Amino acid sequence: MYNFKNDYSEGAHPSILNTLLATNMVQQIGYGEDDYSAQAKTILRNKMSNANAIIYFVSGGTQTNLLVITTLLRSHEAVISAKTGHIYANETGAIEATGHRVITVETQDGKLRPLDIKKVLQDHLLRPHVVKPKMVYISNSTEIGTIYNKEELQELSECCKSEELYLFLDGARLGHALMAENNDLTLSDISALTDVFYIGGTKNGALLGEAIVFNTVKLATDFDYLLKQKGALLAKGRVLGIQFLELFKEDLYFTLAKYANAMAMKIADAIKDKGYSFLTNSTTNQIFPILPKDIIEKLTQKYAFYVWKDIDENTSAIRLITSWATDENKVNELIDDLKKL
Amino acid sequence: MYNFKNDYSEGAHPSILNTLLATNMVQQIGYGEDDYSAQAKTILRNKMSNANAIIYFVSGGTQTNLLVITTLLRSHEAVISAKTGHIYANETGAIEATGHRVITVETQDGKLRPLDIKKVLQDHLLRPHVVKPKMVYISNSTEIGTIYNKEELQELSECCKSEELYLFLDGARLGHALMAENNDLTLSDISALTDVFYIGGTKNGALLGEAIVFNTVKLATDFDYLLKQKGALLAKGRVLGIQFLELFKEDLYFTLAKYANAMAMKIADAIKDKGYSFLTNSTTNQIFPILPKDIIEKLTQKYAFYVWKDIDENTSAIRLITSWATDENKVNELIDDLKKL
Amino acid sequence: MYNFKNDYSEGAHPSILNTLLATNMVQQIGYGEDDYSAQAKTILRNKMSNANAIIYFVSGGTQTNLLVITTLLRSHEAVISAKTGHIYANETGAIEATGHRVITVETQDGKLRPLDIKKVLQDHLLRPHVVKPKMVYISNSTEIGTIYNKEELQELSECCKSEELYLFLDGARLGHALMAENNDLTLSDISALTDVFYIGGTKNGALLGEAIVFNTVKLATDFDYLLKQKGALLAKGRVLGIQFLELFKEDLYFTLAKYANAMAMKIADAIKDKGYSFLTNSTTNQIFPILPKDIIEKLTQKYAFYVWKDIDENTSAIRLITSWATDENKVNELIDDLKKL
Amino acid sequence: MYNFKNDYSEGAHPSILNTLLATNMVQQIGYGEDDYSAQAKTILRNKMSNANAIIYFVSGGTQTNLLVITTLLRSHEAVISAKTGHIYANETGAIEATGHRVITVETQDGKLRPLDIKKVLQDHLLRPHVVKPKMVYISNSTEIGTIYNKEELQELSECCKSEELYLFLDGARLGHALMAENNDLTLSDISALTDVFYIGGTKNGALLGEAIVFNTVKLATDFDYLLKQKGALLAKGRVLGIQFLELFKEDLYFTLAKYANAMAMKIADAIKDKGYSFLTNSTTNQIFPILPKDIIEKLTQKYAFYVWKDIDENTSAIRLITSWATDENKVNELIDDLKKL
Repeated sequence: MYNFKNDYSEGAHPSILNTLLATNMVQQIGYGEDDYSAQAKTILRNKMSNANAIIYFVSGGTQTNLLVITTLLRSHEAVISAKTGHIYANETGAIEATGHRVITVETQDGKLRPLDIKKVLQDHLLRPHVVKPKMVYISNSTEIGTIYNKEELQELSECCKSEELYLFLDGARLGHALMAENNDLTLSDISALTDVFYIGGTKNGALLGEAIVFNTVKLATDFDYLLKQKGALLAKGRVLGIQFLELFKEDLYFTLAKYANAMAMKIADAIKDKGYSFLTNSTTNQIFPILPKDIIEKLTQKYAFYVWKDIDENTSAIRLITSWATDENKVNELIDDLKKL
Repeated sequence: MYNFKNDYSEGAHPSILNTLLATNMVQQIGYGEDDYSAQAKTILRNKMSNANAIIYFVSGGTQTNLLVITTLLRSHEAVISAKTGHIYANETGAIEATGHRVITVETQDGKLRPLDIKKVLQDHLLRPHVVKPKMVYISNSTEIGTIYNKEELQELSECCKSEELYLFLDGARLGHALMAENNDLTLSDISALTDVFYIGGTKNGALLGEAIVFNTVKLATDFDYLLKQKGALLAKGRVLGIQFLELFKEDLYFTLAKYANAMAMKIADAIKDKGYSFLTNSTTNQIFPILPKDIIEKLTQKYAFYVWKDIDENTSAIRLITSWATDENKVNELIDDLKKL
Repeated sequence: MYNFKNDYSEGAHPSILNTLLATNMVQQIGYGEDDYSAQAKTILRNKMSNANAIIYFVSGGTQTNLLVITTLLRSHEAVISAKTGHIYANETGAIEATGHRVITVETQDGKLRPLDIKKVLQDHLLRPHVVKPKMVYISNSTEIGTIYNKEELQELSECCKSEELYLFLDGARLGHALMAENNDLTLSDISALTDVFYIGGTKNGALLGEAIVFNTVKLATDFDYLLKQKGALLAKGRVLGIQFLELFKEDLYFTLAKYANAMAMKIADAIKDKGYSFLTNSTTNQIFPILPKDIIEKLTQKYAFYVWKDIDENTSAIRLITSWATDENKVNELIDDLKKL
Repeated sequence: MYNFKNDYSEGAHPSILNTLLATNMVQQIGYGEDDYSAQAKTILRNKMSNANAIIYFVSGGTQTNLLVITTLLRSHEAVISAKTGHIYANETGAIEATGHRVITVETQDGKLRPLDIKKVLQDHLLRPHVVKPKMVYISNSTEIGTIYNKEELQELSECCKSEELYLFLDGARLGHALMAENNDLTLSDISALTDVFYIGGTKNGALLGEAIVFNTVKLATDFDYLLKQKGALLAKGRVLGIQFLELFKEDLYFTLAKYANAMAMKIADAIKDKGYSFLTNSTTNQIFPILPKDIIEKLTQKYAFYVWKDIDENTSAIRLITSWATDENKVNELIDDLKKL
């Protein structure tokens, strides 16, 4: 049984583990004040062309999202998200648990646009009886594999600025977005156009770890306290620093994401060739082909994946995910099996 | 400069890193459902002679404490802790941030006794105008290096049972406690005498990781939801599972703690020989000698450690911590330096 | 300008104020332990045929809702509500502020049915990545004037029991529901079919005050602590007790609601006679006629009310509310004005 | 049995009830936007010589304290209070329930001084492992009857300014403080020297009600949202507005407090004449005489009061409270009884 269910089925890229071993006995200060973290942050700031960026490394995406949102919002303020957004669909109410409503917007492609935002604002005028929308949360790539292009992100950024809303970009799969063939955004664009974002490590080669980036110093005020208080400050911060150092010192991060995308596109092309359509227009490492149920049934005997959504009596959309660790032989095997079915 | 400031200055015990490497490309289910975590839990349940224990692995101590306490307490319920307790002194109000008061008790040795508990209960009778004490939080070893003996823990356990209080033991340094020369407790005793406890990995050989143990099934109801909601559920749960498997499959955990204690006791003996006294009667890997300030000043030029507390005009207590990774040569060097001063 | 905007534009029914005056200098114990509160509770328990009901009086509806929901739900549990439900539409995220998601359901008539509930449960199976639905929140009468009949409430009650969900009924306008001409529910039915509900005083004759009713003793465990902690326990509990005593010792509560309904129906009948339709099929004190915008414009010169919703280019639905204090002369005047327009 | 147990045993001053009756049927806008509230606020701003003060009326003291503190503090910030402070001793952990630690200071007289504050700051330097003290909470009069004089409040105010701490004054019994014979503070001083304070109505003539005063506009930003969200915004805001209008339009508030103080001092003088001492040097409406236990026993047969604290084997301190409603005949009777014993 081969796993196309997610992009965290294996450990870390071997070069990360080797660096952990090589540096293992060097004494370091704890709680993120180690040399490796400092070096990784310098490299990241350069890569995003933002010398003022304030960066923290944490363990996971839900932790990141709840920390950022609860740090920036006051109690009566709410965050706007696509209904497919990870904070609404997959985090067990983590944001509400910190006291904030997630206002959801139905979308076709998992992306928010200025019109969506304006509609939400229009629906929240009856002060003080309604929550105050104060942040826009987007994911890039989205939870259904799509990406924002530069024009879309610029428009959203301008809308947020003019409406005094924070723009927060969840980059659990930011590498995959930036390496998609139809992408025209850079890490520098992301840093310039959002207030805060994160660079996901867990789903792209790290054992664990996400890099939270506040693009202006002021937004990060006292974030260290919050980090500790919510249980997100690792004693051995080196574990996170070393990983991001390894991933970014020579663009390993982007190489890995590119490979993952290529594997997904290879499968997608084969599926297209067979005449099947897709639930979403993904150009990243998550694809959602719509297949006959009897074919899905047969595939489940050799491959693990999610059946995402019933389409009609005879077909369902499934989700296939690839990663830096996906075995190309298995990809070829899957394609062969598809051709035979 | 050699670091005696804490027990998390180095990475992990090399055998852990090697096992991470060896298992790296084996695909596993995420979110703690991996085989390694399952095996580690089975071994732990055996070692604590409690087949019903429900075990979860998380990243750190503050995360553990806030998760356990907020899971077990209702909004108006409070936890009793020594004033030196980690949840009061070192966690940035993490417990209060989940809505609960920490009621503190002044102690000489960092340990709570039934009389302390009864005094607190006596002070909280004016229902409903006061919080309801519902949990007792202790650490073993304590934050000042002391340990509970079996009789003390039995008495506290009985007190908690009769007063309907949960007993929660913070085992960030449980290995050091159980390996102390004056210890008469076992892991099975801990499991039998408390409601919930944790076994600290971070400070005893792991890269990161603590094992939360609910000693009865009922207390753990729906804990998986909480784990996810608070951002504590790692996608690659294998990272934690593999470490605990490695630490406990052959008692590495205890061997490492014993070594750390031995290093601390070696330093302590040398200090005693010089005629100095100690702030606390520690038999574990944290010692608090009271030294003349000029000697402290000289030591800071070669060694990193905390100056813990001013004693009088001429002397202060310092804190020296050893670990599984402490270099015995450096310990000898420190002893030599002390002898010369 | 006469106010049809809400049912809290005036003070209290005069007999309440007179009783406050008559009892003013009688010393009473504070915090809800006064004789008046005790008497009012006894009368209420009799009227709902439930000797076990645990009753508390508080100041307002949002306070009630947040107290009940946060008392009964654990951190990862969520409440299901119609999208028009007060807890979602009008309480500034009060429920999320206590940590719980409100899962909303789109409805035509503001009411929830078993099929709605089952759909929500079906969407929340991916444990532990999703919240756990644990309570159903309904309003009777609803926020758009409709009511539940006995069969509907029975079916919902059975569904909640079989799915282990709490059923909580918001009775801010319970009097109006029970006095509607098409109603077949009694206070005893409400107590038997729900887990917890409240009887609204503020919108039916009281200065302020709602009676929270836990229909089984167990659900109310330690509620007094919560009441105090959330700032809802009035020092002079007599203020609430006296009002409920006055409202229920001789059915004043129901008489007042009946009058409010009659005034609304009188207006509704006149509007129907003119050939206009309604947004909802209300039989209580809130009606939502759909009128031409020019007529609405003219009405706003003499009457205060909400323009509820744009229907099309030429028409909008407005909301007219009557109460125990509505002046029948003004109702007649409004009807005359409508006839002339 | 006559009640000296608290200052909320009776209803409201009759002139308040009469005004509620007189204005009862005048239609008003809800949620604090009524004319009476507006008038009361104008009068209060004049009396405190602060045209910029932002004022809100709420139901009770615990509600006030939790609202103010949670509005002004970020998650990792803590409030400093005397251990006798109401927020620590009597509010069921209401502040912790909003996420904030209350750091307590032991005092002799219930008052905080700059040295106390500096000691706390000194103990909270280990960023980010400790909470960040950000507010000083004081009560005037204190929970043990003492008051701040102008010099004390000025010094504390300067300390808070220089340390960037908010100064919040709980005025549940502010009238009693300002009317004490040894008082040299005015309402204007209070407004000038604190950041936020409240004027207690419940314990000085109102049915219920406290006036929260933010002394600068900025601190009150979006407070209306918080008020609604926490369940503190009454639909019939007129109930609170009318009461404060009545209390302050002609100094009724101060007259009532003066009377309450006079009754307490009359009892205190009689007790002093008998040669007994007091636990605290109260000049307000709460006194804490230390009496032989057999005398206390006899007094409990005719009078209700708290036995506050055991002093030694033979004596205890009791708490006697008077109010605007205290019957002077009963005061004389108590004094006679004391003389006879």
